[in-house]
Amino acid sequence: MNNNTPTNIPTMSKFLKLAHKFNSFYLNGPKRKECCAFIVDGVQVGLVRAAVISELSRYPNVFIVNPNSVILNPAFRDYEERSAHIDSVLRDMKDKQLFVTLKGWRDECYEVRTMFADQPLLKMDRSATCLFGICNYGVDINGYVNHPSKGLCIWLQQRSLTKQTWPGKWDNMVAGGLSVGNSVIKTAHKEGEEEASLTGDLLKNLKSAGTVSFFYESERGLFPDTEFVFDLELPLDFTPCNQDNEVEKFELLTANETVNRILTPDFKTTSCPVIVDFLIRHGIITPENEPRFPELVELLHVPLQSFYTNRNDEKYSKNGLPDTL
Amino acid sequence: MNNNTPTNIPTMSKFLKLAHKFNSFYLNGPKRKECCAFIVDGVQVGLVRAAVISELSRYPNVFIVNPNSVILNPAFRDYEERSAHIDSVLRDMKDKQLFVTLKGWRDECYEVRTMFADQPLLKMDRSATCLFGICNYGVDINGYVNHPSKGLCIWLQQRSLTKQTWPGKWDNMVAGGLSVGNSVIKTAHKEGEEEASLTGDLLKNLKSAGTVSFFYESERGLFPDTEFVFDLELPLDFTPCNQDNEVEKFELLTANETVNRILTPDFKTTSCPVIVDFLIRHGIITPENEPRFPELVELLHVPLQSFYTNRNDEKYSKNGLPDTL
Repeated sequence: MNNNTPTNIPTMSKFLKLAHKFNSFYLNGPKRKECCAFIVDGVQVGLVRAAVISELSRYPNVFIVNPNSVILNPAFRDYEERSAHIDSVLRDMKDKQLFVTLKGWRDECYEVRTMFADQPLLKMDRSATCLFGICNYGVDINGYVNHPSKGLCIWLQQRSLTKQTWPGKWDNMVAGGLSVGNSVIKTAHKEGEEEASLTGDLLKNLKSAGTVSFFYESERGLFPDTEFVFDLELPLDFTPCNQDNEVEKFELLTANETVNRILTPDFKTTSCPVIVDFLIRHGIITPENEPRFPELVELLHVPLQSFYTNRNDEKYSKNGLPDTL
Repeated sequence: MNNNTPTNIPTMSKFLKLAHKFNSFYLNGPKRKECCAFIVDGVQVGLVRAAVISELSRYPNVFIVNPNSVILNPAFRDYEERSAHIDSVLRDMKDKQLFVTLKGWRDECYEVRTMFADQPLLKMDRSATCLFGICNYGVDINGYVNHPSKGLCIWLQQRSLTKQTWPGKWDNMVAGGLSVGNSVIKTAHKEGEEEASLTGDLLKNLKSAGTVSFFYESERGLFPDTEFVFDLELPLDFTPCNQDNEVEKFELLTANETVNRILTPDFKTTSCPVIVDFLIRHGIITPENEPRFPELVELLHVPLQSFYTNRNDEKYSKNGLPDTL
């Protein structure tokens, strides 16, 4: 094994507990059978919980509510028309203060589609996607240092105390959502500059390293999430510096300290998968110290791209009724 | 992006075709509903195809064949007893030349269990596990070089022309199955020495990097497979040298040449996931050159650890009848 591997990693079964926590919906949600498919243009793009369905049923010109599905009115012909109707409903619900997540209205939209490579069917404010179980995409940069005496060290950020979501929690050095009009690599560069003052010279060493996929659920909503992961080895004398006031502070941790930090409740649950994946790819969490290693790796890459397409054996016609009827 | 990224990678959708090929059962098998659950001690550990079921039904003292399941006789009380009965059936079937895979009898056993961390329920010859859809575990070492002018280069092996399976095909530098009594790291060291003459000094740099999981099917049988993946950076002047006559030759390829090689039919299909994962983790296949990147990553980590436990809503009692009856 490489020499950087720490010898006294805390109990490894804790990683599996963490993987169950950030996959709370993937592992338990489907069994409950509480959610309805959200259908746009004949395909499932999300899931809606009962509390949301009862509110959506107040907008019968926009949503057709069936026993097992909520269908966006198929009379809306294209991306723009669908987006506009959804936007007006969401703004109305926001004004009525129906859902806590809409308090964090962002004026920044995410694309809605079944699979990442599909043409988007509509866009909606990023604060609202969790009400519809829309898959979110984001970008994360693992900033790390190969320290001459401490071995592998990892830069973490503490989120600003005034952030709408997860205020004050520890997080990856750089992370940001993939909003409408931005490519993966453009988002990585933009967030790297804004959140940590990564210059063009440093960003030249940015290395794409895969994705993580998981499906989290909280009181706020449903969060199927795929993060595009980048590694960035940084010089020993570099210190990240925030420009957008979204960061409280940065800290450089050893691998062992990072392990301990992500196992505390002070770490943003939905940022743990990126760190766990990093610790696995860099030989810190291994089959020798984690007996359920294959299971842990699989729970970092749950099949979100086929989650909605496989779930219906039925195909939905555009008027919202199953074709099999 | 890092400077080693090749600029003219061949059409990236070919990687997805490859992922569909090595996941032929995962993507298509369950829909066919042709296979029966293989049950040992009340839990599903595999799947059996119709052609195998009809032969197993000739051994009614060993297997109870029901419409939807094949149950190993619950009268066999422990690991040793189960293993001995299965072994005698398999040797009989081998002598009768019923299945091509048994021609490659190895006198080397794999453990049988539902999940990797579970206590094994029995062992069986590795040539037979594909008849029962038992999950195989293996170890792979990606040997690579950071070449001063060519960038990232990867050592591949050509398999011996006399091997029972995939003779003459191109393969990872080092790969081997996890047989009874060997740990992951011990197998990595053993195979590294036997297949490529990796010395202790070189193996010190061995770095655990994760797993890949996929579910392949061929005429020979069903192959759910999880490979423990290791990376090993090698000195420029090192050349692997085979000691066990299982290798025809080794070749050092650039990243581009490796991409082209795995896309040919000359590469062992079930070794491609490890290489594709390596090319993703090292920034060669990226979201910029592979539009269906999240899907590709997910197909390298399909949920095998929960594949059999999730598939039955029914629980099987030890006499082989569903508890719900």
